[in-house]
Amino acid sequence: MTDSRPLPAGARERIEAAVDAAFDEQIDTTIAFTAIPSTRAAEAPCQDMFAKLLRDRGYEVDDWVINQDDLKALPGYGPVETDFSRARSVVGTCRPAREEGRSLILQGHCDVVPAGPLDMWERPPFQPVIENGWLYGRGAGDMKSGTISALYALDAIKAAGYRPKGRIHLQSVIEEESTGLGALSTLQRGYRADVCILPEPTDEKLMRAQVGVIWFRLKVRGIPVHVARAGTGSNAIKAAIHLIQKLEGLEAEWNERAKTHPSFKSVEHPLNFNPGIIKGGDWASSVPAWCDVDCRIGVLPGWKIADAQAEIVDFVAKAARSHPFLANNPPEIVWSGFLSPGYEATEIQESEAVLAPVYEHVFGRKLTSFSSTALTDARFYGLDFGVPAFCFGATMEGAHGFNERVDLASVKRVTKALALFTASWCGIEAN
Amino acid sequence: MTDSRPLPAGARERIEAAVDAAFDEQIDTTIAFTAIPSTRAAEAPCQDMFAKLLRDRGYEVDDWVINQDDLKALPGYGPVETDFSRARSVVGTCRPAREEGRSLILQGHCDVVPAGPLDMWERPPFQPVIENGWLYGRGAGDMKSGTISALYALDAIKAAGYRPKGRIHLQSVIEEESTGLGALSTLQRGYRADVCILPEPTDEKLMRAQVGVIWFRLKVRGIPVHVARAGTGSNAIKAAIHLIQKLEGLEAEWNERAKTHPSFKSVEHPLNFNPGIIKGGDWASSVPAWCDVDCRIGVLPGWKIADAQAEIVDFVAKAARSHPFLANNPPEIVWSGFLSPGYEATEIQESEAVLAPVYEHVFGRKLTSFSSTALTDARFYGLDFGVPAFCFGATMEGAHGFNERVDLASVKRVTKALALFTASWCGIEAN
Repeated sequence: MTDSRPLPAGARERIEAAVDAAFDEQIDTTIAFTAIPSTRAAEAPCQDMFAKLLRDRGYEVDDWVINQDDLKALPGYGPVETDFSRARSVVGTCRPAREEGRSLILQGHCDVVPAGPLDMWERPPFQPVIENGWLYGRGAGDMKSGTISALYALDAIKAAGYRPKGRIHLQSVIEEESTGLGALSTLQRGYRADVCILPEPTDEKLMRAQVGVIWFRLKVRGIPVHVARAGTGSNAIKAAIHLIQKLEGLEAEWNERAKTHPSFKSVEHPLNFNPGIIKGGDWASSVPAWCDVDCRIGVLPGWKIADAQAEIVDFVAKAARSHPFLANNPPEIVWSGFLSPGYEATEIQESEAVLAPVYEHVFGRKLTSFSSTALTDARFYGLDFGVPAFCFGATMEGAHGFNERVDLASVKRVTKALALFTASWCGIEAN
Repeated sequence: MTDSRPLPAGARERIEAAVDAAFDEQIDTTIAFTAIPSTRAAEAPCQDMFAKLLRDRGYEVDDWVINQDDLKALPGYGPVETDFSRARSVVGTCRPAREEGRSLILQGHCDVVPAGPLDMWERPPFQPVIENGWLYGRGAGDMKSGTISALYALDAIKAAGYRPKGRIHLQSVIEEESTGLGALSTLQRGYRADVCILPEPTDEKLMRAQVGVIWFRLKVRGIPVHVARAGTGSNAIKAAIHLIQKLEGLEAEWNERAKTHPSFKSVEHPLNFNPGIIKGGDWASSVPAWCDVDCRIGVLPGWKIADAQAEIVDFVAKAARSHPFLANNPPEIVWSGFLSPGYEATEIQESEAVLAPVYEHVFGRKLTSFSSTALTDARFYGLDFGVPAFCFGATMEGAHGFNERVDLASVKRVTKALALFTASWCGIEAN
């Protein structure tokens, strides 16, 4: 491991100019990438496109179908309920002839969350458009512009006449929004580096800590009857409501604990409980027999997931005991995705020391950091595989919402910062 | 109009014996009818089967596709949201050469409510089986055994060597469980009689009054965000929960009013509010942007539907005003099916006088009556088209629930009562 080394004279200016020169093309590529509706289990065309972008540039491309069985015993594994038969990871490697510099992983995810009802979008979510310097579209911010930034950052080094002296893996994964199995699969396959940067949309800050997340489904089953005799049956929708409202108590309890957590004590309400999907009943005039609620709750870095799961199980059991029907028909809990611990990037001093001056040059202000109330794939690298990892990326709005958009001027700044960081971190030499 | 006339000597015994003789075949027909999964918009094979049963017996068969536009201006019309292009009514008419006796409509509905999750049935819902004298299956009780009872009641009169002296319409309709448009279509087409009996499963009692029903859908729309910033968005599921819980207040208020209603003051909690279907959100880690709740609420006979709708609208608007998000984003209310007033059978003295002695003979006890907390198609006949109507049918369990079943001994008693009523009401003569 070596310290940051000064760039060759004029390299910084030439790399920044190369980002500027290719930025129109970068936007076009970002738009094409964002136009692919790569929701869960439909990421294949995005992975195809990214693999082609890598091949066209001469990267060594590893594009493989993920075998879920290879991952089940690994830390941070979360169960998958969708069709996983076409799940793929794509890694492009740029390998110097002699690996003298520090190595780097740049990882993006190409899966996006569902767009929701189209009538709530002002523009079609998968027909990206630019207005007043913002690029609109589902995934434009989270995080297709980030992945493409990393690609063009490396392009700029080459266009400026240099090549990195450290090994670089440019990775596109799936399942970031549900289990993280895409990132886990790259680690299972053996990809490692001295640092991993995830150009997630961090509002131009360094994400130093993040919560963990657990997904669970409450499955309530009741005895349905004709609504004429509603009193003799149990309305599963009403029973599910009881559980949702009780779980707000667990959320409050956990947020109390966060008030003394070093990374989250100054964050207001860091641990959100979200009933995100509800489905129950099939006839207005039948007392509903079932109601499923898909929930997400945050956990603090340092908490064991198994302990948090046990707390959820106990809390739901207690809530059920206080309900006349549920007491005799306790709900089932299904772990339906994320079983992901929180993460604090405690080992990134070396990379931060390289990023800070680059940031100050490009952004004209000091690099700041924050603790996130969302999770990212960074946890796998940093917690379990000895790869210090952090997120750093552009400014966006509407993540997981309607009219998602990313600030293109911010994307350009981030691209420059990633390029200059890479050059400084890996070292560069004339091509 | 004539009074009830004595049956020819020996007719009663011969008709009862004919019911007994054909009862195995009646059960087979009921099983075949119940085996057809005639949920909403899928009733066609049931109507085909019933039309064939009528044709095979020589009825004059009227089998037509319902034009919804013909019904829209009629009283009691409720909006249909499903495919109505194949909606049919089937009427079989038995017309005496000289119409000397009173006329009769016997109406059944062949639509059934959804079966719900199959794993909650002990037996497949559309593979009817008999166990310990009960016939199990979705629709076995509500009300395929009733429709087939009417068919075999008329068969028994013929098999006993008689023919009715009054015009009889044997009708099979759809949409009874959702709008009532099937029954309304027979009235729009002009079918009338001196009385209409609906062999609904009334536990061997006469249904003298019934509530009305309104269906409505609450459509809540929120501003979704990443759950990391849950505080800045509005969770549409939580907002829908707020409305559901507030509407329980309307239910309580309406049941207070029922305490002075002549037909319902002695019924406990006659007006049920049922959130029957809920659907919201599409991602556990996105604050849900929308939640739709399909609701059913009962209304008392005598209430104007438009007034009740206005009360619901006002109540929901008030509930929305007390919620921080809904106050600025009031929910939409969609009238999604039944807009049906309650009904009291005040004009059935003449038919009741005929049924009572028949009942006492067959059942060995006095006929009793009740006020129902569910509605039936009877309302259209009695309220708006001058056809006194009431329900009378067999004992069942599990209506709109799992393991629906009908008591076959009760079905036989009801078949005999319907046959003897018809003979007495219309009069019979040797065939």
